[in-house]
Amino acid sequence: MATLKDVARETGLSVTTVSRVLNKRGYISEKTVEKVNEAMKKLNYQPNEMARALSRRSSNTIGVIMPHLDHPYFSMLLSHLDDAACEAHYRLLVFKSKGRESRTEEYLDICNGNRVAGIILCSGHVRTEVFSNGGSPLITMERFMEHGTSAVECDNFQGGRLAARHLIGKGCKRLLAFTGVRGMGMPADQRVEGFRGVCRENGVEYWEVPIDPRIYDTLEYGELIEQELDACSGVDGIFAGSDVIAAQVIQACSRRNISIPGQMKVVGFDDTRIASLTTPGITTIHQPVREMAHLAVSLIASARAGEMVPSRTVLPVTLVERGTT
Amino acid sequence: MATLKDVARETGLSVTTVSRVLNKRGYISEKTVEKVNEAMKKLNYQPNEMARALSRRSSNTIGVIMPHLDHPYFSMLLSHLDDAACEAHYRLLVFKSKGRESRTEEYLDICNGNRVAGIILCSGHVRTEVFSNGGSPLITMERFMEHGTSAVECDNFQGGRLAARHLIGKGCKRLLAFTGVRGMGMPADQRVEGFRGVCRENGVEYWEVPIDPRIYDTLEYGELIEQELDACSGVDGIFAGSDVIAAQVIQACSRRNISIPGQMKVVGFDDTRIASLTTPGITTIHQPVREMAHLAVSLIASARAGEMVPSRTVLPVTLVERGTT
Repeated sequence: MATLKDVARETGLSVTTVSRVLNKRGYISEKTVEKVNEAMKKLNYQPNEMARALSRRSSNTIGVIMPHLDHPYFSMLLSHLDDAACEAHYRLLVFKSKGRESRTEEYLDICNGNRVAGIILCSGHVRTEVFSNGGSPLITMERFMEHGTSAVECDNFQGGRLAARHLIGKGCKRLLAFTGVRGMGMPADQRVEGFRGVCRENGVEYWEVPIDPRIYDTLEYGELIEQELDACSGVDGIFAGSDVIAAQVIQACSRRNISIPGQMKVVGFDDTRIASLTTPGITTIHQPVREMAHLAVSLIASARAGEMVPSRTVLPVTLVERGTT
Repeated sequence: MATLKDVARETGLSVTTVSRVLNKRGYISEKTVEKVNEAMKKLNYQPNEMARALSRRSSNTIGVIMPHLDHPYFSMLLSHLDDAACEAHYRLLVFKSKGRESRTEEYLDICNGNRVAGIILCSGHVRTEVFSNGGSPLITMERFMEHGTSAVECDNFQGGRLAARHLIGKGCKRLLAFTGVRGMGMPADQRVEGFRGVCRENGVEYWEVPIDPRIYDTLEYGELIEQELDACSGVDGIFAGSDVIAAQVIQACSRRNISIPGQMKVVGFDDTRIASLTTPGITTIHQPVREMAHLAVSLIASARAGEMVPSRTVLPVTLVERGTT
């Protein structure tokens, strides 16, 4: 592989001058720049990004830690994070934590060891002392964290209210809500709070079903849904808490010959690709994931520039109506 | 942030000794190792991975370039690549190319500039001269490339044969096959070749529908499916080419009150999460993505160790029967 020395030899310039061209430092004539660029092309010279990052004491890499990579919500988020990072000339170092605390902390260590420009954490609990000395700006998405972080969330509370209002507006009398993951203390818990409030205001009967963390790990909700359909008789509307759950509610209803939206109405959450791929399509709460992703990346840039960043930013949600209601 | 010097000062050892402990070089007593580890913990010292990678002249990062990140197949593949990388102590630097050649080449440059341990390329055409001088082992997955690479594929040809045999075995008489992306020359093209062979052997009528690259970019197949259902009357079996297409075939049939599997049978390809989330679930060709991902990562390790790697490895597929047939 060609080195800086080879480029210098090819151009007849000093290594220092070539390095100055590469790093755009000081005054260099256009002719010299052209000469260096031509030689670099001819020799197929690749600037050593690691060496350059080391001299800057920080890389242009953002660490992204997600519980799942094979999940429509996190896939959509990762795709938008890639767009935002690309625009801002960052690259993404991606880790799957499966929600396991021990692994998340290990990944934070790796990120800090790699002197990342920032970390975007979409994973569960991390002991705050783990990253309080880390140095890289830490953005959490749809997760709470106590110290030294900036949280980006959608308006989960309002999302729950929209879902309940929509189901009640469609004539539902007995509602079932799948809530956040038990004991995780996630922003998603506020969805059911918003939902509950509207049910009470309207005097509508409702049941809440918390999700076991083991089920969240496997994303297999079928059995739980069947149990609840047995336990809560006469339910005619379901707030599924996520599109992945909503898709499995459609399957469970199909197995029992319960027609959707005739006998049962269903609202999901997230507005992932799955919501438009099921039959019928899922009425759902749209998270502005594109905007959340761009915000997260720009917060990292702001934090690095020494600007004050909000400790929490909540973006609005909307209801998207499809076939399940 | 604590430095190596701080750890040396804390322990009363020389920087050289601390560095030797860190890099596990030479003989060092257990007591010294313990002392250094304690000091590192106390000072929250993070080894500078960039500096260590630079001294090794290569990082423990694998570059992954995918056309889509928000696509069930690539999400599943990325998730398994993460597992395989984690086991082999690699991290993943992830890029979305959207199938655009210019961007893919730019990402290859970035990977080489970062001295990655290897590159896994799941994206379309790249001019071979672009990476022939790159230096990092290049593994392609479900893509062809001419020089200096190792291709990992599933047995697409056999997958097409299995799909046709299954549909014909279920009594279908007039078949429709959505084929690979027009003009891309992807291994997926072999799916329809296998399919075609079985149809001919059995004297069964069939139509082939190539996919326009613009549709592959958006993944919105609904209109194309409706057109083909109009054009090819009496079709009673569809080989959808992917689960994402199969999900949209289910939707189109539902809009026309064509019952699945009663009046129409559908076989997908990939066996992604979506295949088990639609109603009915999708009968599909299972790609051994877990095994393909582990193989790709181990090929990088082999190539780096100077071992001969196969230019092409084809792993077997199976048919998974669900509700659409």
